[in-house]
Amino acid sequence: MVNETQHTCSASSSSKSDGGSSSGSESSKDSSRCSTPVLDADRHERLREKMRRRQDSGDKWFSLEFFPPRTANGAVNLISRFDRMGAGGPLFIDVTWHPAGDPGSDKETSSMIIANTAVNYCGLETILHMTCCNQTKDDITGHLQKAKRLGLKNIMALRGDPVGEEWEEEVDGFNYAVDLVKHIRNEFDDYFDICVAGYPKGHPEAESYEADLRHLKEKVFAGADFIITQLFFQSETFLKFVKDCQAIGITCPIIPGIFPIQGYHSLRQLVKLSKLEVPQEIKDVIEPIKDNDAAIRNYGVELAVSMCRELLDSGMVHGLHFYTLNREVATTEVLKRLGIWKEDPRRPLPWAVSAHPKRRVEDVRPIFWASRPKSYIYRTQEWDDFPNGRWGNSSSPAFGELKDYYLFYLKSKSPREELLKMWGEELTGEESVFEVFTCYITGEPNKNGHKVTCMPWNDDPLATETNLLKEQLEKVNRRGILTINSQPNINGKPSTDPIVGWGPSGGYVFQKAYLEFFTSSEIVTALLKVLKKYELRVNYHIVNVKGQNITNAPDLQPNAVTWGIFPGREIIQPTVVDPVSFLSWKDEAFALWIEQWAKLYEEESPSRMIIQYIHDNYYLVNLVDNDFPLENCLWQVVDDTFELLN
Amino acid sequence: MVNETQHTCSASSSSKSDGGSSSGSESSKDSSRCSTPVLDADRHERLREKMRRRQDSGDKWFSLEFFPPRTANGAVNLISRFDRMGAGGPLFIDVTWHPAGDPGSDKETSSMIIANTAVNYCGLETILHMTCCNQTKDDITGHLQKAKRLGLKNIMALRGDPVGEEWEEEVDGFNYAVDLVKHIRNEFDDYFDICVAGYPKGHPEAESYEADLRHLKEKVFAGADFIITQLFFQSETFLKFVKDCQAIGITCPIIPGIFPIQGYHSLRQLVKLSKLEVPQEIKDVIEPIKDNDAAIRNYGVELAVSMCRELLDSGMVHGLHFYTLNREVATTEVLKRLGIWKEDPRRPLPWAVSAHPKRRVEDVRPIFWASRPKSYIYRTQEWDDFPNGRWGNSSSPAFGELKDYYLFYLKSKSPREELLKMWGEELTGEESVFEVFTCYITGEPNKNGHKVTCMPWNDDPLATETNLLKEQLEKVNRRGILTINSQPNINGKPSTDPIVGWGPSGGYVFQKAYLEFFTSSEIVTALLKVLKKYELRVNYHIVNVKGQNITNAPDLQPNAVTWGIFPGREIIQPTVVDPVSFLSWKDEAFALWIEQWAKLYEEESPSRMIIQYIHDNYYLVNLVDNDFPLENCLWQVVDDTFELLN
Repeated sequence: MVNETQHTCSASSSSKSDGGSSSGSESSKDSSRCSTPVLDADRHERLREKMRRRQDSGDKWFSLEFFPPRTANGAVNLISRFDRMGAGGPLFIDVTWHPAGDPGSDKETSSMIIANTAVNYCGLETILHMTCCNQTKDDITGHLQKAKRLGLKNIMALRGDPVGEEWEEEVDGFNYAVDLVKHIRNEFDDYFDICVAGYPKGHPEAESYEADLRHLKEKVFAGADFIITQLFFQSETFLKFVKDCQAIGITCPIIPGIFPIQGYHSLRQLVKLSKLEVPQEIKDVIEPIKDNDAAIRNYGVELAVSMCRELLDSGMVHGLHFYTLNREVATTEVLKRLGIWKEDPRRPLPWAVSAHPKRRVEDVRPIFWASRPKSYIYRTQEWDDFPNGRWGNSSSPAFGELKDYYLFYLKSKSPREELLKMWGEELTGEESVFEVFTCYITGEPNKNGHKVTCMPWNDDPLATETNLLKEQLEKVNRRGILTINSQPNINGKPSTDPIVGWGPSGGYVFQKAYLEFFTSSEIVTALLKVLKKYELRVNYHIVNVKGQNITNAPDLQPNAVTWGIFPGREIIQPTVVDPVSFLSWKDEAFALWIEQWAKLYEEESPSRMIIQYIHDNYYLVNLVDNDFPLENCLWQVVDDTFELLN
Repeated sequence: MVNETQHTCSASSSSKSDGGSSSGSESSKDSSRCSTPVLDADRHERLREKMRRRQDSGDKWFSLEFFPPRTANGAVNLISRFDRMGAGGPLFIDVTWHPAGDPGSDKETSSMIIANTAVNYCGLETILHMTCCNQTKDDITGHLQKAKRLGLKNIMALRGDPVGEEWEEEVDGFNYAVDLVKHIRNEFDDYFDICVAGYPKGHPEAESYEADLRHLKEKVFAGADFIITQLFFQSETFLKFVKDCQAIGITCPIIPGIFPIQGYHSLRQLVKLSKLEVPQEIKDVIEPIKDNDAAIRNYGVELAVSMCRELLDSGMVHGLHFYTLNREVATTEVLKRLGIWKEDPRRPLPWAVSAHPKRRVEDVRPIFWASRPKSYIYRTQEWDDFPNGRWGNSSSPAFGELKDYYLFYLKSKSPREELLKMWGEELTGEESVFEVFTCYITGEPNKNGHKVTCMPWNDDPLATETNLLKEQLEKVNRRGILTINSQPNINGKPSTDPIVGWGPSGGYVFQKAYLEFFTSSEIVTALLKVLKKYELRVNYHIVNVKGQNITNAPDLQPNAVTWGIFPGREIIQPTVVDPVSFLSWKDEAFALWIEQWAKLYEEESPSRMIIQYIHDNYYLVNLVDNDFPLENCLWQVVDDTFELLN
């Protein structure tokens, strides 16, 4: 980022200088500056600014369209897909408005809630579609207010398909998308970025192509910021459309909608809905292979890649919008072949940020939720301000209670049967629990031959960084130190390091070694004796489910355990071990034993009682080795503890 | 600090936990936590708490009493004394109330302003004396309000000496110190810590020793927090007094007032004022040597040391209060011999903190004022909030204008004649200015044989840390890179390092190399060409007096150049290079050429015109080498610049 130099010269800068050196009589509120380091300009720009910046810099981008799922399970899967496809670096995603699915409701499958999840929990810039026909002004205003409240900042304003055979204009109603655009601008001023639809072949219901262009111009002049087009089959179609738009004075970005053909039936259905004609040369290829899904998909990918290349090469296209049909493979392949899928996206912070505008400044979190970021976001969603720069002396961080462990975006992706295979159909004692933890760490199959790919505290396989500690972790888990979170110490690795790096390039990242685990009270007793020897070096916090806790944190202050030093910036310290938040985390961490694991078994069953016993009697421990330039001493602490026990 | 472990167990801690995990519906203002790392508990405690903590921990302490000076010059000298004696680590100082000297006024010699300077500019915990007899309630309330506004938190409540021969009680007036104590508690509740005077031999005007003890008890029960005693000559006097106080129920701290005899005349005067009797054995020693000041002082030191030892050994004394008579030598020697003078006080931050309560949280400052901390405090005194944790994106830091360069606490300690000897009676060209800078760096005398011990930008000799860079600094100053501020890069030295260390022990401190200098536009032109090569590594900011400026700071963000990592704490980054504040600093830095240097010479004189030329035409440049783990590249930048010029 340091190469984005900013030269402020003479006139303009001396006016800045005046602002800076004005007299002390000014409101000194201005002098309270505990504000944001613009680590990642993306977090602070609105979508239309991001587009403009990409256009100026020549960075090509892509975006992805999804529709809301029908079932709660479908929602869980779609959200996993958001996470996976989000990793490729889309500029935004959009979620269609599904009038039949109660799109503005709080149902986990509604358009509104899916878009909310994408923004808040997956950190994706998101456009929510909204249609206006057959809806009252109040309904629409209500939807928009809700969208705003949820942190959505972009609306795709559409007319929508009229219900019923014959459609008649309603007086004073919303008959066209342009009415919705005007309404948004009237009621919400410039809050939303507005996108409208363009039809490269003209809207099927328009009197003519030219008339449709005029309608589009009306929508843009009513306040739309950019246009996404209906799908098309040939690049010339789009390029001609753009020229025709420009000829009548439409100057906003026009983004081509790309539809990689993924199957015979989906193509037919889409064509029917969109009333588009498939070119004869495509039909000629497809008809003979219509029962061969793989062949059609391969052809679809080829076709999309070559059309996208033509578009990008034209110099008139800066971004590509993909109609994914909620599928991953074809779109991802097209993007990879075009070279615009980001294989290793730079992480602005070590954790995935949320895209809610009020979280823009957030750059510090307790380490405890490292593997459950969505839970952290959920539990802090009511906060009005988010810590930045410092976590601070958290006098009372009001964490929301995690009442429903089955909130769909926190639900395990694996069904009960699979979890039982991983975590044991029948437990025979605490040791069988140790075994599960050990298998998760090693990646080796358990005694029934199943790999343990997730744990109640971690829905994903072991992080690459944790792999650095694999050998030691295996050893301690085998002996009943049941680790759920850890990080190695790092003494100044380049911020571009593929495993531990984050933040702008040219910087250095640091970590203090961290280890968090459940363990028995016998081990805790020995551990406490050992920790006396390490009093000046190791901070600890030890708590059981009842809240009995022991810590040596000075004044219950947070301990920064991850930080980065970057050119031309203040210091960023994105993770802390906060003794106060730890007591909120422990409620969640202990509850996961019961909610996710014990409840897999029958009540009163021995397996369930074993988990219940651990829940009731084990302690949750965290340890920080403050001496980050030296070799991590936490393994020695654990070894000393076992030695004392023997 | 990590050894002050805090074990929170069961009940008490689980109530904390409840606070921590309460539901998200609570006022989420609480979740805004950009607050203070308790780096130094002292900054957050009131005086009585500090005393209590010292008493609990067994740390012996001392305090120092001063009286306000008569002249402005005397004020400048007293403030230098505050800085020097403050370095020994007094728990507090106190400033007497001088009724004849308009003590509550804004004069630079008033008790109020001297106490204000001690708190705000010297960072000393300060008690302001206040007397009440012959004053109206409104006057007193006015003084107290002013004291509060200035950040004074402690009052020594005294009756004061009545004016005139015969004194009569005024009805409804303030006749005794107890009236003042009650008034303070009535009007200001618990805001002030209140100290009262105790008389180990009884107040000379009291009916009896016992009656005086009862008066003292009244003062304490009216709300006084601790007692400082009148001076005495034998430890038994004090120890008996403490026992007598305790016997009648006085339980607050009682601090012995120590008066090291420093001369025959000052002793006689004090004895006359206090109506105390000097013990015969002391008289016997002093009378024969009354004209030998050194002998009397030596004897006084001996006497004070042995009495203080007796007091400390009694176990009843935790702190010692010294009547300094505004002199340094005797008191300092007593303290050093007692071993309670802190030879190397740990610096909580790399710069001297202010003791104003509203600056308690302050832990970040721009590096520019490193050698002019009092000026920084003055220019930010109107701020209501002070940056902590982060400097932030300083949209408009409203620095007060430095209108009067002769504000007494910013005044140079050296008179004009001395400055002329150091900086040249007559300048012959820019080179003679280079020579002055070079002599300041090297410590070598100038061509007239005078050492240059201060500069307009720095009233003290070169800092130890700067000495690390001496050789390179000399080389560049000789060639017209006129350095006024610099620091070496540091890649993780222990926080206890005697030269660059600061903050709690067990930590590591870091720095980015920094160099700030004035130089000609020719050199700047070459420098800018050279800097292109270092674009990714070096941040620069270059500005002339007219405000033309060039920088590559990304988004005008501040760059942290000093930071520390400590056990169990968040990261502290006490100095930043902030491109916005730099524009306020440059006004001051350029003005110092004229105000402190040019004005030494006659108007229109060649010497004055040379300084004026530099002021009008030179640039102020700052450079940061972001790559702190590598060897400082700034010298290479300067070398490359000179090479380009040749």
